[in-house]
Amino acid sequence: MITHLRYRAEPWRLREDGLDLEVLPQSESLFALSNGHLGWRGNLDEGEPNGLPGTYLNGVYEEHPLPHAEAGYGVPECGQTVVNVTNGKLFRLLVDDEPFDIRTGTLHHHERVLDLRTGLLHRTVEWTSPAGTRIRVRTRRLVSLTQRAVAAVEYEVELIEGDEDAGEGLARIVLQSELAANEPMPPPSPDPRAASVLTDPLESQDASVAGTRLRLQHRTKGSGLRVAAACDHEVTGPDGIRIAAEAGGDLARLTAVARLGEGERLRCVKTVAYAWSGQRSLPALHDEVDAALTEAQVSGWEGLCAEQRDYLADFWERADVEVEGDAEIQHAVRFALFHVLQAGARAEERPIPAKGLTGSGYSGHSFWDTEVFVLPVLTYTLPRAAAQVLRWRRKTLPEAMERAEYLGLAGAAFPWRTINGRECSTYWPAGTAAFHVNAGIADAAVRYAECTGDADFERETGLELLVPTARLWRRLGHTGDDGAFHIDGVTGPDEYSAVANDNTYTNLMAQANLRAAAAVVRRHPVAAAKLGAGETEAAAWDAAADAMAVPYDEKLGVHEQHAGFTRQADWDFESTGPEEYPLMLHHPYFDLYRSQVVKQADLVLAQWLRGECFTAKQRARDFAYYERLTVRDSSLSACCQAVAAADAGHPELAYDYLGESAAMDLGDLQHNTRDGLHLAALAGTWPALVAGFGGMRRRGPELRFAPRLPGALRSLAFSITVFGRRLRVAVRPDEATYTLVSGEPLGIHHYGKPLTLTGDAPQTCAIPPLEPRERPRQPPGRAPEQRRR
Amino acid sequence: MITHLRYRAEPWRLREDGLDLEVLPQSESLFALSNGHLGWRGNLDEGEPNGLPGTYLNGVYEEHPLPHAEAGYGVPECGQTVVNVTNGKLFRLLVDDEPFDIRTGTLHHHERVLDLRTGLLHRTVEWTSPAGTRIRVRTRRLVSLTQRAVAAVEYEVELIEGDEDAGEGLARIVLQSELAANEPMPPPSPDPRAASVLTDPLESQDASVAGTRLRLQHRTKGSGLRVAAACDHEVTGPDGIRIAAEAGGDLARLTAVARLGEGERLRCVKTVAYAWSGQRSLPALHDEVDAALTEAQVSGWEGLCAEQRDYLADFWERADVEVEGDAEIQHAVRFALFHVLQAGARAEERPIPAKGLTGSGYSGHSFWDTEVFVLPVLTYTLPRAAAQVLRWRRKTLPEAMERAEYLGLAGAAFPWRTINGRECSTYWPAGTAAFHVNAGIADAAVRYAECTGDADFERETGLELLVPTARLWRRLGHTGDDGAFHIDGVTGPDEYSAVANDNTYTNLMAQANLRAAAAVVRRHPVAAAKLGAGETEAAAWDAAADAMAVPYDEKLGVHEQHAGFTRQADWDFESTGPEEYPLMLHHPYFDLYRSQVVKQADLVLAQWLRGECFTAKQRARDFAYYERLTVRDSSLSACCQAVAAADAGHPELAYDYLGESAAMDLGDLQHNTRDGLHLAALAGTWPALVAGFGGMRRRGPELRFAPRLPGALRSLAFSITVFGRRLRVAVRPDEATYTLVSGEPLGIHHYGKPLTLTGDAPQTCAIPPLEPRERPRQPPGRAPEQRRR
Repeated sequence: MITHLRYRAEPWRLREDGLDLEVLPQSESLFALSNGHLGWRGNLDEGEPNGLPGTYLNGVYEEHPLPHAEAGYGVPECGQTVVNVTNGKLFRLLVDDEPFDIRTGTLHHHERVLDLRTGLLHRTVEWTSPAGTRIRVRTRRLVSLTQRAVAAVEYEVELIEGDEDAGEGLARIVLQSELAANEPMPPPSPDPRAASVLTDPLESQDASVAGTRLRLQHRTKGSGLRVAAACDHEVTGPDGIRIAAEAGGDLARLTAVARLGEGERLRCVKTVAYAWSGQRSLPALHDEVDAALTEAQVSGWEGLCAEQRDYLADFWERADVEVEGDAEIQHAVRFALFHVLQAGARAEERPIPAKGLTGSGYSGHSFWDTEVFVLPVLTYTLPRAAAQVLRWRRKTLPEAMERAEYLGLAGAAFPWRTINGRECSTYWPAGTAAFHVNAGIADAAVRYAECTGDADFERETGLELLVPTARLWRRLGHTGDDGAFHIDGVTGPDEYSAVANDNTYTNLMAQANLRAAAAVVRRHPVAAAKLGAGETEAAAWDAAADAMAVPYDEKLGVHEQHAGFTRQADWDFESTGPEEYPLMLHHPYFDLYRSQVVKQADLVLAQWLRGECFTAKQRARDFAYYERLTVRDSSLSACCQAVAAADAGHPELAYDYLGESAAMDLGDLQHNTRDGLHLAALAGTWPALVAGFGGMRRRGPELRFAPRLPGALRSLAFSITVFGRRLRVAVRPDEATYTLVSGEPLGIHHYGKPLTLTGDAPQTCAIPPLEPRERPRQPPGRAPEQRRR
Repeated sequence: MITHLRYRAEPWRLREDGLDLEVLPQSESLFALSNGHLGWRGNLDEGEPNGLPGTYLNGVYEEHPLPHAEAGYGVPECGQTVVNVTNGKLFRLLVDDEPFDIRTGTLHHHERVLDLRTGLLHRTVEWTSPAGTRIRVRTRRLVSLTQRAVAAVEYEVELIEGDEDAGEGLARIVLQSELAANEPMPPPSPDPRAASVLTDPLESQDASVAGTRLRLQHRTKGSGLRVAAACDHEVTGPDGIRIAAEAGGDLARLTAVARLGEGERLRCVKTVAYAWSGQRSLPALHDEVDAALTEAQVSGWEGLCAEQRDYLADFWERADVEVEGDAEIQHAVRFALFHVLQAGARAEERPIPAKGLTGSGYSGHSFWDTEVFVLPVLTYTLPRAAAQVLRWRRKTLPEAMERAEYLGLAGAAFPWRTINGRECSTYWPAGTAAFHVNAGIADAAVRYAECTGDADFERETGLELLVPTARLWRRLGHTGDDGAFHIDGVTGPDEYSAVANDNTYTNLMAQANLRAAAAVVRRHPVAAAKLGAGETEAAAWDAAADAMAVPYDEKLGVHEQHAGFTRQADWDFESTGPEEYPLMLHHPYFDLYRSQVVKQADLVLAQWLRGECFTAKQRARDFAYYERLTVRDSSLSACCQAVAAADAGHPELAYDYLGESAAMDLGDLQHNTRDGLHLAALAGTWPALVAGFGGMRRRGPELRFAPRLPGALRSLAFSITVFGRRLRVAVRPDEATYTLVSGEPLGIHHYGKPLTLTGDAPQTCAIPPLEPRERPRQPPGRAPEQRRR
């Protein structure tokens, strides 16, 4: 799974031995640190070489015109792109006047370790300068999960051996700690999934020095957002260290000059704080970063590390997934959970972008991925983070309602891709027409409210999201002559189909949206009345839901991805060579759209999220049908197929898909991890295990399990937080043990059999044997890699 | 119909009385002169004021990158835009140092007349300068139909009354005749149908003066095309005229200085020649323009006028359409034929753009309009011009075959919009997916070959166009489980539907394309073998044609525009206000695409071009069904609806549609005549009369007529050239007379009754009475304006 020789998967750490510049850009994403508010890519401390310099503040973006060769009504003209803000992690080091740069001199040792329990990124380097001075550099870096605005670096340089010719056994060391804005960026990539990288997005507003404290303040030119960065330093080492500081324009710099004898060390702890606002003034932001810095300095480096460790210990206690029998999967699921946590922990009414804050891929935009792939994990492990993201959606309701009105619709039309709540998608067949994003948001709100019982949330955020999304569906669809409610001309999750009628996923998710809205309006009539919603509208929503069209091919006995899908021409897989994937980079959309070829789980995703609408037999039959059409050119597919394969009685196939999903970034399967991690695919490893091998399904207050392990795994154990309880499920090949860790007794189902969990004792149930089934086939060359059994 | 008070429709002239700056841009299009190779917009001689300066050479374009916010495979990245080349029609006049500008001083009289029989644009102006000098300016302008590279202007200024204060009865006149490149252009329009206007597209290569001859040579910066312009002058007037000439950079100028007494005249005849090439050298182009100039000067002004008159006399003898009972229609059809002639006469292996050479609308691109709307008229009136356009398509086969391969298809995929043969359309649902352009080209080639019996053409151009287009269809479609041949995911003529399955127009036109290709391969086996085509492939084409799917709604008893169309939601016409048209500027495409709303004739066009595939009853029923859905937001629609209405037994409705089509530019119905004339709509007035009220249909060698006039018309007569014969058809309310003007005897049908025409005598047949039928309804507010009866 980890395809690069230099990465080593340890249960709680990602370790890189040596340094390969070829994979440096990917490693910057893998080693990124973030708390959801502030993100630092894993760039080398000295800034260069780099793949993509990256420092991000959630919500800081630049606006720019979206170019169109041919304009069209409803196509956005203003884009948003995440900005690489002031880099506070930068340390330049000069050794006897020679810049420390791993591309020069001799690199004896280079090791980076991301510790998932401490949240620290460690680096150790041993290097001899071209002039012959040998040093060891040790750094540790954190982005605080407890102090939202704060990150810190401990930088230590030790003289191992002085320049022999000089013969003194001494070295002159100059360490420059910087804040640097408008870093030079790499040239733009032709890959449409990469970002439109902006050059020099920031204009200087202020630069100042106070002792060892540096401050820079900038503003984005178009969107007019102020960004303040400040840092302070604690420098220790041998006597005679001289320190100077200066600031101006795009650069603030503290310089420490020292002479080190062999075995002596110069150490600098740099605490960095950020603040940004579209409204607050320059002095207000100054005060904000100063306050954050001072608080962080009160904690001190050790204090920040301790807080980080405690925060993570609590998280792992609630969220850890233990896997026996596959060390790579064990590592990967923890790596994934760590990054999901990093993306969501402190997002706080801001979006979770598709790449988190690990890169500028997809321009830093958020998509439906957040609600459908990331929030389920957070809901069961860190519920307050899920609520915060949904509150962000609620804050953007004015933009979504304006968009719906502009499109001639009703209610709210949430954007396909956005940072500030306004639509940025210019390719409408896979943007505007992908209305299912609205149902995904509604589903996430219902999930959060049901799992937590948070009635305040349901009455406020839940109701406010459900009512306008239901209104959208009601207006978007129409009742046909056949009496069915049809939603025509929309695009489902599969981006190799578009603008089709009655996309089954969309229709079933809309159906749930409509029913949930009706229910919540009835539960909260007073709050609903303020939105102008009442029983009449609720009844109309229920009626539309009841009449919802679900296209089914009677002849083939399978559900259609959309009306007419199974009648479409087959894609000529036999003539499609491996170099033609991903297909969208080698074939025109018109040809993909009209063929039976599936980029990513669509109907199969509907079967997972709305499983109750299908019989088990139908799900198995549908899964086999779509399996032979699905090429997985999207990183979102493998995890869904893992869940569906497990559900359809193919645990070994599910295991292979789990492996693929888990390797998406660690193995750079999409060749674009350099632009940032695939957060949804990372998040997807959790349901692949929990919903796949754990067989967990929830419908309202009902929790069902049907666990079954693939042959290679000796055990799987996971914890969830739900209905105010903490539950631990441990699955072994022949039996599963359910433990109520905390909370009131709870009834669950094991393979359809009801049992009640109490705090008294775990309950162990046998897993029924599996009838052997024929393994479904994938398109030629597109089967997932088989994991060693 | 002519809505502006200043325009007057005379049988053979378009006259404008006075000058209204509001409609100056439109008038520049209406008064444009062209021979298909060279086009001069009807800009005022003195250059300013203007709406859009325009001098065009067919095929001279600039390349520019096409911007994309989100890239996609197959979306062109390089665009083409027609270039406003060197203006040779410019005369600046100074009267006692005061520039002659109709915005200053007093305009006593302003008249422009376009004479359709002489091909001259006349202008007469009487003006008093701010200083009190009164002059009369008379100009005549032509773009030669006989000498392709040549245009000429006669400019005459007469002193009526000298400045009274000066008291001399004399005026100092300075006349500057110019060649001017890179004229200042108006700011770009936000209307997507307008052009992307380029600023300063030309770079100077050479400028020279030889006596009264001026020359400028330029090159387009990106496409690297050389453009040479030259002019020579004959200046006459009172004694003492002084002449100077100079040239440099973007300007060459001849200045004539004279003193005019009252009643005296200064006259300048300016002969202008153009040449351009992507390959030939600067001296070669110099020689080319000098040769053209010298030849034109041998003819002299009067000689050029005589040649023009003779050319047009011949054209009108073959092509005139006489209408009694509606002077506006009489004028409009001649105006339309004149502009169709101007666009096609000397295009000579170059495209006919959607706007001809009358403006830069649609960036000067050619569309399917050319083959489907313009070539039918030319085929029956000026067949060699039709052949020349098809030879242009043949020349672009390498680009079309490359495009097909790039799209993963076979054969040739001709571009949706282009100047040089490469695709420029960036909105693929209405570009790439509109594959029907290929069938339109094939249809035009078959029509030309069948109507002229030109076997050489059929074996060369015909075969070479038919074989690769048939190959495209064979690969584009697939045989479904139902045994039918389906063409999925394509866009038909109606641009309010897109990417649909089995568009009836496309399928029926592809069917004809396949059959014609099979037939021509069998007729020319040796030539076909060189293209690798033989009986096996021909049989496969026939089989696909025979199995072609034609969607039909059994329940409603109507054909579907595409599979599933009649099941789509109704457009909410009741809630659509008049200000919401054209709908594409006020509603998103996704909503239009999924609704039953039709921009322009689509199924109804299929019924015209492939009428034999429907019964008369079906056509009437289908027409009525689509009539209530068709909003005519395209200028291409009214003429098709006129033909279909006549066919369905609604001559009065047809008459209204004829009126609309005829007024498209004269009444500026689309509000964009400023960017150039709607050539296809102009061309469409001819079939509205000939195929509509003449009821003419041809299928192979079979010519059928079913004439019937609307109540307001007393007679209609038209001539056609077909099968080597000249035919004249005269229709009166109760009878029709068929005259074989020249050629061998010919069998035709009148209302299904066969009759043989010989040169001996005309044959007159009675027109059967019409059963009254209910007039079909249009969407609210979208009925065509009712013409006075």
